Amino acid sequence: MRPESFSRDPKPQVGERLSGCPFCAGNEGQTPPEVFALRPPGSRADGPGWEVRVVPNKYPAFSAAAGVAHPEPHYRSIPAAGRHEVIIHGPGHDATLARLPVSGVTKVFSVYRERLTELSRAPGLVSAIIIINQGREAGASIEHPHSQLFALPMVAPLLAAELARMKKVRTKGGECPVCSIVAYEVSYKERVIAENEYFIAFCPYASRVPFEIFIAPKAHRPGFAPAGEEELAAAARIVKSVLERLRDRLGDPPYNLYLHTVPFSEDGDYHWHISILPKLSIIAGFELGTGIMINIAEPDAAAEFLR
Amino acid sequence: MRPESFSRDPKPQVGERLSGCPFCAGNEGQTPPEVFALRPPGSRADGPGWEVRVVPNKYPAFSAAAGVAHPEPHYRSIPAAGRHEVIIHGPGHDATLARLPVSGVTKVFSVYRERLTELSRAPGLVSAIIIINQGREAGASIEHPHSQLFALPMVAPLLAAELARMKKVRTKGGECPVCSIVAYEVSYKERVIAENEYFIAFCPYASRVPFEIFIAPKAHRPGFAPAGEEELAAAARIVKSVLERLRDRLGDPPYNLYLHTVPFSEDGDYHWHISILPKLSIIAGFELGTGIMINIAEPDAAAEFLR
Repeated sequence: MRPESFSRDPKPQVGERLSGCPFCAGNEGQTPPEVFALRPPGSRADGPGWEVRVVPNKYPAFSAAAGVAHPEPHYRSIPAAGRHEVIIHGPGHDATLARLPVSGVTKVFSVYRERLTELSRAPGLVSAIIIINQGREAGASIEHPHSQLFALPMVAPLLAAELARMKKVRTKGGECPVCSIVAYEVSYKERVIAENEYFIAFCPYASRVPFEIFIAPKAHRPGFAPAGEEELAAAARIVKSVLERLRDRLGDPPYNLYLHTVPFSEDGDYHWHISILPKLSIIAGFELGTGIMINIAEPDAAAEFLR
Repeated sequence: MRPESFSRDPKPQVGERLSGCPFCAGNEGQTPPEVFALRPPGSRADGPGWEVRVVPNKYPAFSAAAGVAHPEPHYRSIPAAGRHEVIIHGPGHDATLARLPVSGVTKVFSVYRERLTELSRAPGLVSAIIIINQGREAGASIEHPHSQLFALPMVAPLLAAELARMKKVRTKGGECPVCSIVAYEVSYKERVIAENEYFIAFCPYASRVPFEIFIAPKAHRPGFAPAGEEELAAAARIVKSVLERLRDRLGDPPYNLYLHTVPFSEDGDYHWHISILPKLSIIAGFELGTGIMINIAEPDAAAEFLR
């Protein structure tokens, strides 16, 4: 299919603040008490004035006091222990990463760094993933732009598979698979969407969905948390730029974004990255039954369309 | 969440035939030529009179003459060689498995058996999966009820994982995992939805989505293709019964269904089964980034609701 055939009409913008939105400024009382916020020195927790705000998810998938829903001798299960936090991108209802200024996106990322560092010290937590579900069709139940941080008592299967792959390659004395792919894509050029001094964004060779985007540091960086100010700002620039292109060229499609970073407990050999999966197709019976993704859009053409 | 909160209003039924539908009786010329049909002796291929009709998919994901879209030295790829067939459930536009009589569902399943047997003899094909995407939100691009059969030059990852698990258990002298789960669920009772002399239908302990349903032969049966007439009719009865409950109690939700059966090339140790995944939730960033499914409905309560 041709890239432009995925385009749709963008949704109209809503106002700066909505009285019924629990994440809008002025409605802080509608969420659980904040666990962190970027706010002026001396300002009151759970009051106005914040720039980025972190609250526990009201309906957590993982929590500090989780039991096992259905312990049964025939099956293995573990408590859904962990943390499930919401990182509200800004006080305004329209604070998507595409619409925020670069400084605003940088602040959101600095809060990612803060929370990952903090939670890495909590007992029993082994790894974390940060995600964004943007748009109702991508699973967002609250429209106000926000990220979700999940800190888990285990390494999730997809991250575990990437770590196992890294270990296998390293045992043979090989190069980090992400470093190797980044170097190849830089030389191949056709799938690159954007690049700056620290980061590259490209459509992966084996894109799982139309317009999948992979963003990674060009240098070998295991974790997101140790990133310095310059790197954070560079990450903000490339992520904002890529999301602006999605919005402007595909009509603001819903998307899922996730950030993979080295587990808290690892020896540190990993290469952190962000995956963005626009929600332009449906994961259906074939994908669910095989684990193979059918993608009807060529990644080379998708990258050209976004460049 | 309580089971009844997933309920929705059923869609109105449409007519028996639609002039614009390529799968309706009378429109046989709108599809590629049929590769098989249940039709009266002496009736003309691609003419009317058929009960179940099989045609190659007009936009195949796998085909006999597939090349490699993007062969590049840095990545591994294989041609999308194989078959992608459409099995049209009946000449009427409303021929869902829930609405067809048991005899009609049995005929659909007898065509599954016919095509699996035929394709198992074709060179280069290693395994097959049959799926149904019912409803637009579940990925159906054509409303007229149909199944899709994919025959592949490989064993897909999910099937391969199940086969590896079987092998591992058998090496230790253990019982087939599906046999073991079926025996446990029969004794536990709370997650069983329906049962007959040959089959059981239950909500799995680790249901991936609300109202997930697993249907398997109670006896150890590696493949679908060797099933006899009585077994086919019993499979038709339980599948129809389960889909009727979904329709009546949840308001005809869209769903994905897949049938896993032993690969053509295997030594034969497997246990075929059908999985049904109603599309009542969204696979979002957490699921895509971790491979872990968050399911907000208890399988015990879901099974009780469908019983």
